[in-house]
Amino acid sequence: MSGIWGNKIRYSIFGESHGPGIGIVIDGLPAGIKLDIDMISKEMKRRRPGKSGISTSRTEEDAFEIKSGFFNGYTTGAPLCAFIPNTNQRSRDYEQQRDLLRPGHADYSGYIKSNGYNDYRGGGHFSGRLTAPIVFAGAVAKQLLAVQGIFIASHIYKVGREVDKSFMEIEIDDALARTLAYSDFPTVEPTAEASMKKAIADAKASGDSVGGIIEAAVLNLPAGIGAPFFDSLESTITHLIFSIPGVKGIEFGDGFDIAEMRGSEANDTYYVNNNKVKTESNHNGGILGGISNGMPIIFRAAFKPTSSIAKKQDTVNIKAMENTTIEVTGRHDPCIVPRAVPVVEAAAAMAILEHL
Amino acid sequence: MSGIWGNKIRYSIFGESHGPGIGIVIDGLPAGIKLDIDMISKEMKRRRPGKSGISTSRTEEDAFEIKSGFFNGYTTGAPLCAFIPNTNQRSRDYEQQRDLLRPGHADYSGYIKSNGYNDYRGGGHFSGRLTAPIVFAGAVAKQLLAVQGIFIASHIYKVGREVDKSFMEIEIDDALARTLAYSDFPTVEPTAEASMKKAIADAKASGDSVGGIIEAAVLNLPAGIGAPFFDSLESTITHLIFSIPGVKGIEFGDGFDIAEMRGSEANDTYYVNNNKVKTESNHNGGILGGISNGMPIIFRAAFKPTSSIAKKQDTVNIKAMENTTIEVTGRHDPCIVPRAVPVVEAAAAMAILEHL
Amino acid sequence: MSGIWGNKIRYSIFGESHGPGIGIVIDGLPAGIKLDIDMISKEMKRRRPGKSGISTSRTEEDAFEIKSGFFNGYTTGAPLCAFIPNTNQRSRDYEQQRDLLRPGHADYSGYIKSNGYNDYRGGGHFSGRLTAPIVFAGAVAKQLLAVQGIFIASHIYKVGREVDKSFMEIEIDDALARTLAYSDFPTVEPTAEASMKKAIADAKASGDSVGGIIEAAVLNLPAGIGAPFFDSLESTITHLIFSIPGVKGIEFGDGFDIAEMRGSEANDTYYVNNNKVKTESNHNGGILGGISNGMPIIFRAAFKPTSSIAKKQDTVNIKAMENTTIEVTGRHDPCIVPRAVPVVEAAAAMAILEHL
Amino acid sequence: MSGIWGNKIRYSIFGESHGPGIGIVIDGLPAGIKLDIDMISKEMKRRRPGKSGISTSRTEEDAFEIKSGFFNGYTTGAPLCAFIPNTNQRSRDYEQQRDLLRPGHADYSGYIKSNGYNDYRGGGHFSGRLTAPIVFAGAVAKQLLAVQGIFIASHIYKVGREVDKSFMEIEIDDALARTLAYSDFPTVEPTAEASMKKAIADAKASGDSVGGIIEAAVLNLPAGIGAPFFDSLESTITHLIFSIPGVKGIEFGDGFDIAEMRGSEANDTYYVNNNKVKTESNHNGGILGGISNGMPIIFRAAFKPTSSIAKKQDTVNIKAMENTTIEVTGRHDPCIVPRAVPVVEAAAAMAILEHL
Repeated sequence: MSGIWGNKIRYSIFGESHGPGIGIVIDGLPAGIKLDIDMISKEMKRRRPGKSGISTSRTEEDAFEIKSGFFNGYTTGAPLCAFIPNTNQRSRDYEQQRDLLRPGHADYSGYIKSNGYNDYRGGGHFSGRLTAPIVFAGAVAKQLLAVQGIFIASHIYKVGREVDKSFMEIEIDDALARTLAYSDFPTVEPTAEASMKKAIADAKASGDSVGGIIEAAVLNLPAGIGAPFFDSLESTITHLIFSIPGVKGIEFGDGFDIAEMRGSEANDTYYVNNNKVKTESNHNGGILGGISNGMPIIFRAAFKPTSSIAKKQDTVNIKAMENTTIEVTGRHDPCIVPRAVPVVEAAAAMAILEHL
Repeated sequence: MSGIWGNKIRYSIFGESHGPGIGIVIDGLPAGIKLDIDMISKEMKRRRPGKSGISTSRTEEDAFEIKSGFFNGYTTGAPLCAFIPNTNQRSRDYEQQRDLLRPGHADYSGYIKSNGYNDYRGGGHFSGRLTAPIVFAGAVAKQLLAVQGIFIASHIYKVGREVDKSFMEIEIDDALARTLAYSDFPTVEPTAEASMKKAIADAKASGDSVGGIIEAAVLNLPAGIGAPFFDSLESTITHLIFSIPGVKGIEFGDGFDIAEMRGSEANDTYYVNNNKVKTESNHNGGILGGISNGMPIIFRAAFKPTSSIAKKQDTVNIKAMENTTIEVTGRHDPCIVPRAVPVVEAAAAMAILEHL
Repeated sequence: MSGIWGNKIRYSIFGESHGPGIGIVIDGLPAGIKLDIDMISKEMKRRRPGKSGISTSRTEEDAFEIKSGFFNGYTTGAPLCAFIPNTNQRSRDYEQQRDLLRPGHADYSGYIKSNGYNDYRGGGHFSGRLTAPIVFAGAVAKQLLAVQGIFIASHIYKVGREVDKSFMEIEIDDALARTLAYSDFPTVEPTAEASMKKAIADAKASGDSVGGIIEAAVLNLPAGIGAPFFDSLESTITHLIFSIPGVKGIEFGDGFDIAEMRGSEANDTYYVNNNKVKTESNHNGGILGGISNGMPIIFRAAFKPTSSIAKKQDTVNIKAMENTTIEVTGRHDPCIVPRAVPVVEAAAAMAILEHL
Repeated sequence: MSGIWGNKIRYSIFGESHGPGIGIVIDGLPAGIKLDIDMISKEMKRRRPGKSGISTSRTEEDAFEIKSGFFNGYTTGAPLCAFIPNTNQRSRDYEQQRDLLRPGHADYSGYIKSNGYNDYRGGGHFSGRLTAPIVFAGAVAKQLLAVQGIFIASHIYKVGREVDKSFMEIEIDDALARTLAYSDFPTVEPTAEASMKKAIADAKASGDSVGGIIEAAVLNLPAGIGAPFFDSLESTITHLIFSIPGVKGIEFGDGFDIAEMRGSEANDTYYVNNNKVKTESNHNGGILGGISNGMPIIFRAAFKPTSSIAKKQDTVNIKAMENTTIEVTGRHDPCIVPRAVPVVEAAAAMAILEHL
């Protein structure tokens, strides 16, 4: 397994859902960055379970301890290690069903990969809980991006069949970005929230779960960032986005719709504005030839419905190699999308920072 | 820019469309691999311009010269360098319009990135021609995968609005895989070819271009390959797929459709078959938690319409910083999708090999 | 700064001498390795301060906590994080002299590198204390090497002008290797210990310190391990050895003496023995063309005398930019060589493992 | 094998002594660097065989062809590939003795590594000829360093027992640096040249070879460059220096002599000079804690005598697994040290550039 990513700034993740804790080492940070710890805490809370009444009842503080690389309020330039102790674990939930493969989870693929030596409790290292250190790292990355005026806005674009307005249709101004950042359930259209929450509640009521799409925009990224081969801006962003459990698709700009278009429709034509080159449209989502063109970077990531559902499902007992059924107990979100919003932003922030 | 990719086997790409040539160094190949040079030539021909009467009239041989790492028919374990000399260049086509930004191309983003020092002729290092060395590397990767029984099948899933049958709906047997591999215009449904070719011809007739979708399947990949963070199987595949010029989206299994599904629909339930664990469905495209589960890896990549079109477009003269128009001359494909098929396969082969 | 090393197995180090603690994340370990925790503890004790009566009076337990990647006695294949909490710190020792550059230390170079944001207490991240996580990682690496029969023997070859017999002159059998591994002050010649300890005591008595040389041998490494460019076996070993504070030179086989030799003397001639190829001599220290030849890998690393000495020294107050003097207080080893023995072995083990 | 090195700028080497040619891809160069091609040619000539009448009679032009990344006199930011075609090969020399292991060469270790699939002609990929692309890359690196005023001076410090004056004893001013750079046989003491050349001639006369030491200094490197773990300045430099065939030892500052010193002797005490911090001495060779301290970086690399000698030597026929003897024919340098001078400088330049 490869728990290390990055070239200039490198991230080394570790931990399991029901072990002593989880964490991340961030290597290569410049010295003398004043870290806003409150902002990091706020980001951690955006991902925290137990919010909105619609997510898992496992309430954790996700309090992080900075173990190194931070001194008198500033980064030292030495590796920054953040550790999040695990609390409120109920491993018994998992012990009873340890040999039953939960459909949709990494139980089987992870079992084979580790020859059965994986920590099976709560998904172990494969748990969505590992996104907490990613949010930590993303919060640090965001602070470095903010210095250059770059920020990331995102919203819940879709839950089930309920759709919000797309960033492709609007201008994302500061007011909207701030509203989204402070919202527990960020949508562009205020009305979208209620219908989406109802879709989630409906799924939960029937012992089921539902998927969705998160749309994000990187704003104020200057032109000229990225590379054609092999580290295109899209490559880097998608590499990290596909490290988020549950993601099954990603698209930039018009994405899959662009396949149906003609060149005369899809090409973003240029014009000069205040001695700056701009494009009339943004079908390409701000990236051409793997390199930013100065327009907002816009992408959407598709999340599958939460794999853990109360409904009885067919499965296999991996030890006995016998067909059986499973009813997944434990505390689970009926939809991971709301909690995944800061994770998507974190992944995008880390990816962008890598290119600067 | 980063023209090097990989960890176990590393690929270092170089070259420009109108320079002396293009090439790739493949580092880390094991010694003693008998390379089938004919098979490499066939793969190169699949990508070659000038086929089918529907693609660019620039006919090149794409003859490759192996400069190192190959001795008496076998790899030596030393770096393998392949060089493809450029021939049949018509740089004048580009010289006339060198200051005009071609919409949809990397002319502007690449200009900014290189502070204007880029080789602008034919897109320079950003040219789709750079996919030739990728196909070479992919052909080598495929030969290494074949030893383990792993192979990749792909087809043109969509051109414009014309759709082929999806790999999600069928069983991909050896006969189909072979048919697709030997076809200049691979589709599952024989009837799809005609309608797609008509869509391309229509676009060409109106001085325009059209996009499409390629669907690929990695077959016989054993379970347990990949990682949850940060090098998931999806991360690695998408990283390389987004290095192919023109790709704007990727999805695995049900992809974006999974966002509308419920957990009880999207979960692939397990059963035992001949003492092997299988899943009833393959909504997750053969990957769970970033790790293969033994089912076929299925993904789709969306390509935008060719950026070079004959129609007049608004643009900017980057030197004069003035609005103007452009009619892109030169020889161009009205649809890059047919030629991109072996490139997608190559990227997938390199990605899979990285994990083995 | 770059606190991450390795390609197949990657090590991410963090921590400061007087912060919450120090640690290391080991990424890429195979799953299912039964770790001998007692053996790791023993290795940690070999490096521990306070032994032999000749080293620093800061007695720390160096008790390590495994935070992840280890479950029911076995590695899980997920990242293994070990954390060593700091205890028994006396930061006041350092607070008084924080602006005085200690000669021989990284105070000045580290101050410039971090723009003055470094944690100056006890050397911070530059402290020799950071070798504790390296010894932890080395202990894990040794266990993986042992499975293949590979082990590392080392001894104190030189302290000041006192010299032990060299590995170049003897056959290193299992008995000797075991004796060295269990010794607090390993020498080949039992008589060397007393004279070396006297040299250390003499230095200490005069408020001074003394340097030395450690010689190590990697045994049972098969032929064919390494590479010519750029990751020769020597490159990899020296890369890590020069991460140990205080090292100023390294040589393999006859090392610097080989510069005076003729080819007819320095060439290790081949002969067949029991159908195996061997060399009559080992002037090249078991490495030819960057690749092992089946003979023992033998190298020597030169350590400078401990920089912290009680004697008054000229220096600079970096804040005031004034000349001044310093008497370094605190608890320090008069010779770091004895404690560095397991660190050298750890670095060698990590380097060898990288190539296997 | 790993033919790729570097993080910010990455070098990918390829080629064999008797194949079509050798070369290197340099990835990550900034765009807009005006390359002085004449200077590169001069550097190539410094390494060229056939100079001084004392080296191999294989005279090659080592003419390099830039295949990519260079346009209208400037780097484009895309990968720069240089290719050096092989000429004047006499493979028959090697064909006759292909199964006889040449003592001191990588014949055996390379044979095992590649399972016998190595290109055995002239050492194949293990040939000293591969240092030509390193010199090319070093010449480019030097031009980037020169912009920042950083340059590298070196001389032949020792041949056999003949010793030049050390950089540790003198001030290296611009005049000396220039003299050394323009000399075919650079020494500090003009008288050293004659005695060293005589040592080489004597070795040659007796069908033998002789080793030596090269000393180099990196001048004007600012303080604060490097890292403590794991990429110390010494680690990076030694990593590359040990990629040069024939190197068996390296030491910084006083190197192995420092092991005999006391702390009060070895510590370089600080003083203020013109509001700059300097050290009175430079026992540590300009590096403390892996980081530059603003003093010249001084190191020495020990080269073994040329392995190819005319004298009859015992060896093994690897196919027959029988003892036999060999007289190595072909054209060889009796001492590789003079030709290795620009190679050492190139390696140092690449290493320093990596840290900037």
